Amino acid sequence: MAISALDHPLLAGLLGDPEIAAWFTPEAEIRAMLRFEAALARAEAACGVIPEPAATEIIGLISDFSPDMQTLAVASARDGLIVPALVSQLRAAVSEPNRAHLHFGSTSQDVIDTALVLRLDPCLDILEARLRGILAALETFSETHGTQPLMGRTRMQQAIAIRYADRLENWITPVREVLDELATVRAAAIRLQCGGAAGTLDKLGDAGPKVAAALGRELDLPVPARHWQTNRRGLIALTNWCAAATAVLGKIGQDVALMTQNELAELRVTSGGGSSAMPHKVNPVNAEALVTLSRFVAVQSGGMQLSAVHEQERSGISWTLEWMLLPQIVAATGVASLRAEALLGSIAMP
Amino acid sequence: MAISALDHPLLAGLLGDPEIAAWFTPEAEIRAMLRFEAALARAEAACGVIPEPAATEIIGLISDFSPDMQTLAVASARDGLIVPALVSQLRAAVSEPNRAHLHFGSTSQDVIDTALVLRLDPCLDILEARLRGILAALETFSETHGTQPLMGRTRMQQAIAIRYADRLENWITPVREVLDELATVRAAAIRLQCGGAAGTLDKLGDAGPKVAAALGRELDLPVPARHWQTNRRGLIALTNWCAAATAVLGKIGQDVALMTQNELAELRVTSGGGSSAMPHKVNPVNAEALVTLSRFVAVQSGGMQLSAVHEQERSGISWTLEWMLLPQIVAATGVASLRAEALLGSIAMP
Amino acid sequence: MAISALDHPLLAGLLGDPEIAAWFTPEAEIRAMLRFEAALARAEAACGVIPEPAATEIIGLISDFSPDMQTLAVASARDGLIVPALVSQLRAAVSEPNRAHLHFGSTSQDVIDTALVLRLDPCLDILEARLRGILAALETFSETHGTQPLMGRTRMQQAIAIRYADRLENWITPVREVLDELATVRAAAIRLQCGGAAGTLDKLGDAGPKVAAALGRELDLPVPARHWQTNRRGLIALTNWCAAATAVLGKIGQDVALMTQNELAELRVTSGGGSSAMPHKVNPVNAEALVTLSRFVAVQSGGMQLSAVHEQERSGISWTLEWMLLPQIVAATGVASLRAEALLGSIAMP
Amino acid sequence: MAISALDHPLLAGLLGDPEIAAWFTPEAEIRAMLRFEAALARAEAACGVIPEPAATEIIGLISDFSPDMQTLAVASARDGLIVPALVSQLRAAVSEPNRAHLHFGSTSQDVIDTALVLRLDPCLDILEARLRGILAALETFSETHGTQPLMGRTRMQQAIAIRYADRLENWITPVREVLDELATVRAAAIRLQCGGAAGTLDKLGDAGPKVAAALGRELDLPVPARHWQTNRRGLIALTNWCAAATAVLGKIGQDVALMTQNELAELRVTSGGGSSAMPHKVNPVNAEALVTLSRFVAVQSGGMQLSAVHEQERSGISWTLEWMLLPQIVAATGVASLRAEALLGSIAMP
Repeated sequence: MAISALDHPLLAGLLGDPEIAAWFTPEAEIRAMLRFEAALARAEAACGVIPEPAATEIIGLISDFSPDMQTLAVASARDGLIVPALVSQLRAAVSEPNRAHLHFGSTSQDVIDTALVLRLDPCLDILEARLRGILAALETFSETHGTQPLMGRTRMQQAIAIRYADRLENWITPVREVLDELATVRAAAIRLQCGGAAGTLDKLGDAGPKVAAALGRELDLPVPARHWQTNRRGLIALTNWCAAATAVLGKIGQDVALMTQNELAELRVTSGGGSSAMPHKVNPVNAEALVTLSRFVAVQSGGMQLSAVHEQERSGISWTLEWMLLPQIVAATGVASLRAEALLGSIAMP
Repeated sequence: MAISALDHPLLAGLLGDPEIAAWFTPEAEIRAMLRFEAALARAEAACGVIPEPAATEIIGLISDFSPDMQTLAVASARDGLIVPALVSQLRAAVSEPNRAHLHFGSTSQDVIDTALVLRLDPCLDILEARLRGILAALETFSETHGTQPLMGRTRMQQAIAIRYADRLENWITPVREVLDELATVRAAAIRLQCGGAAGTLDKLGDAGPKVAAALGRELDLPVPARHWQTNRRGLIALTNWCAAATAVLGKIGQDVALMTQNELAELRVTSGGGSSAMPHKVNPVNAEALVTLSRFVAVQSGGMQLSAVHEQERSGISWTLEWMLLPQIVAATGVASLRAEALLGSIAMP
Repeated sequence: MAISALDHPLLAGLLGDPEIAAWFTPEAEIRAMLRFEAALARAEAACGVIPEPAATEIIGLISDFSPDMQTLAVASARDGLIVPALVSQLRAAVSEPNRAHLHFGSTSQDVIDTALVLRLDPCLDILEARLRGILAALETFSETHGTQPLMGRTRMQQAIAIRYADRLENWITPVREVLDELATVRAAAIRLQCGGAAGTLDKLGDAGPKVAAALGRELDLPVPARHWQTNRRGLIALTNWCAAATAVLGKIGQDVALMTQNELAELRVTSGGGSSAMPHKVNPVNAEALVTLSRFVAVQSGGMQLSAVHEQERSGISWTLEWMLLPQIVAATGVASLRAEALLGSIAMP
Repeated sequence: MAISALDHPLLAGLLGDPEIAAWFTPEAEIRAMLRFEAALARAEAACGVIPEPAATEIIGLISDFSPDMQTLAVASARDGLIVPALVSQLRAAVSEPNRAHLHFGSTSQDVIDTALVLRLDPCLDILEARLRGILAALETFSETHGTQPLMGRTRMQQAIAIRYADRLENWITPVREVLDELATVRAAAIRLQCGGAAGTLDKLGDAGPKVAAALGRELDLPVPARHWQTNRRGLIALTNWCAAATAVLGKIGQDVALMTQNELAELRVTSGGGSSAMPHKVNPVNAEALVTLSRFVAVQSGGMQLSAVHEQERSGISWTLEWMLLPQIVAATGVASLRAEALLGSIAMP
């Protein structure tokens, strides 16, 4: 499908990020959900909540289970999400006595939130690696050309003489800061969700906390002191970080778009966009895209802040809004990092 | 791809709109672009700007041309858009003397904007038809049950006795108004784009206005007094209208979600969402989705207003932002109309 | 107070608009509210709903009534609005038998919405007059200098030669369109609000429509077919128009900020901002402010679209949000028109 | 002035926060700016950059200097900010030989940003104290009534039985987390700005870092490794935190507005808003206001993320946008904390 430009095959060169996108395919999502269900069975068996053989059957089943995707899509119309139908399909494949042991005590939100977090984690790895590369490229450029003189400009007017290093340091410092913040963001966002129907793990009784701890170990996810079914602050910390990262890259893009103006010619783009009417032009396409993406992510992450209020024990309204915003924020941040890499690989002194 | 929930196969039942989506596939987009190039050749031949045989060859070629999509995708990275590569592929298939006559005097933005508008027009038809159906369903419900008493509520508290018809009329009037505004919105948005490299149709000389008029006739599109390459007010009128339409449906959703609360039981949802943990529940999934979609479209259409400022003769920055926002606004509005249809087909008196 | 930069005395030169601000003082607001109550009494007496002498006493009282502002402010904490306290103060000053005739059958929202609309109307006059002046100034500039050559620029790069008139026409057309749309916007927004406690004018019985019509005549306001207590589309049409108007001016500002760059020198600013560190600079302060204001208004008007969903018969949540957004949108649009006037009064050919 | 509802005298009870507002008066702003100039003189004298007697004269002058506010307001129109005019007034009062020593090597942005930060610091103290009170009130309520049964609700439908403590803990945990994050936010935002004309402290030569360090000591502000003239991430961290804080309180408001519905009656509001038409009602005004404020701050803080990209060495465009957004974000967060205090002081078990 191609409603979102981020999903558009023809814009893949400009706005695609295959590496991030791989974590947002239906297959990746289902895989993460099944991983949750298997880990839950293992954790509940370990805690004596379900019988060991039930867990064994469930885990075996899941290891090569492929759901009927079409049925899931249809069910999303009825239920607003696919988990009940997925659990239903799984249960139908489990032997009768073990059916109730699958997904026991859990709820759709535990599955969906944890499956999301399991995929956000590697996305952050991807973004981090790229930002480190961008930082290194910037530092190299500054070391190589930093002592060259540059006209400092304030309010779009010539101000005083500076050096390239001065402006570059205004690009470098924020990239470094964004990288420094990543550990905090990761700790806030990448956490197990395990609350049960209304956040109280009611069906697990006293075993609740023990199961949550075991489940966290199984999935290699930190277990927060409390579920976050209505407390979306971790995910919003992540999308705010994406907004910060794209803004940092957006400033580089904005400055390069100004620096490559013909009359200023403070930088050159060695390979850049053509025009169907004026093939001689070299358009700073990557620089422009960085500004575009920073605005796009700012708008979307503002939307995430609007989705923060979840009513009562669980919200359909705000949660669905989150689904519509978060993946494109992460993907657009990925695209920005790719465009920044391409830009830095193509700029040269005039 | 499934970065956007609107493109997500597994959420197709909840957030998909196949009818609208059909206008945003790469194939539909290419088809509209080729239609533009063929119509341009025909119009320019009719105005004596290019030779008649050139137009004949170009139109013949286009009638069964399939571009190499992969090359276009790659080119988007370089050029920021696919038109130069598409024109290139087309020209390579035209005989040498006629090559320059293809796309003559035009520019990427003429192609992309007009190809968008050609697809937005049928999308508005779809939305209009659905809103008329929604209006009729509301009117029928009001005629059937309108005289029943209902507790009027202000600031979430019981106020005074009203009738169902009173609340329904607060849903009906805005739907009617949104429909009434559509003609104005259509006139503002559905217009030929024809400006050439910098909006001056420079290569067409005195023939510019004549070619534009002929091109408009070919494509059955009104020709505005002036190109709108940097004047995006028509498209923003359309996305503001989408925000209005989803808000109107969002109010219905918000009210139904409140009315179907167990203790209020002012309406019933006859078929509704289940829960993986609590299969007995009937969740007002469609009602919730309407609130979600109204917030999503409000956020995106706010972003469109931010994209309104295009610098100089043409902007890469704001134009690309528009590409990222507009299709999902239209698609989400389509989804809202589907969810409203489903909701109205499933509500009943308590 | 100075929490909003639009209210900040020290930024009055940059971000103030005394003419618009005069319509948003507490005094102007109270005056409009009292005008509503007097007109209501007159209309209800004319329709035989309240006795003529009651109306006479009420109108006489209101003609020189000054409420105790402090008490109103305190009451806003309790009631969320000032009307109950204002009506209370008025009733205390009316003779006992006529007390119940004051504000009869009306509700706070009728008073506040209508009092707002009565003040928005002259604000639109102010904006219209300024935009006409801006249009004339642009046309004059184009007539005087339009034939001069200018480098056309797309994606921030030199494209092809155009004339100043070509770029100016890209500023002029949208200003003209914004002015053309004003009549539609005015018709949508400037309308009487008259619905009573829950939109049904319940206390007026059959006289409801007649009273509404008479009240509209008294206040010289069109009477819509139905109250708009939860249907805020008129006000949102107005704020969308403000976003369009500031975007149109924002493009002029963005282009001028680029054109006055030292190396491009396509325009000069004859008087412009200084710097505490570099007194020789001439900063294009007005041009920058136009871009700022277009972004500010885009953000706020996106917020207005979010406030469109009012639950049940009346919303405290969304209505209060509207109060927080709408006045600053109108004021910022006023400021933009002032900055544009100042900019056009200070630009010159290089 | 009363363009912003946050500045509106008649809404002071609902939307005012006098304690926060005191830090955003023109007087408080000037005072902080003068404090910067005095500290700069002291620091520069200590570092041997300006003569000791010059510093003494400057500090003496500033200790009882009152600028002509009217002239500053007028100057903001010309310069886009008031610092050049303020420095001018100060210099006119200094003896000739010492004039150039005042504001030496500094720039408007150093003054304005630092003066802002000096006032944000006590605002954070205010917010922190109130949030601690809110946390304590929630904990007390939970201790007192937490064991009472409550219907857990998901997607607005009855789900399973929980206790009041379960829902309250969903309010308490986020408040605690927001408080825990404050130290990080403070470290990011509350920092000296000291960069000079183009961020290079060019006029101070080698003494630059030493002066910055001394200035930080004088003002009791941490000195960042690098100026942040174009790196606004600290301030955006602060406004994101405000969005988080208001969202946390907004959830409480949203839940209370649902819980106090007449038919649910899960909580009571002992004193609440009246209505001009229905004096018997008890409207959950504070609860509604919390939802309103969380949406308002979400919108504004989304705008702050949009203002993150500052072009070249200093931006007029984005910086001015920040001025228009940040104070109202802080003030609205203050108001939310006041409304939450009032709400918690007025709720009771049914």
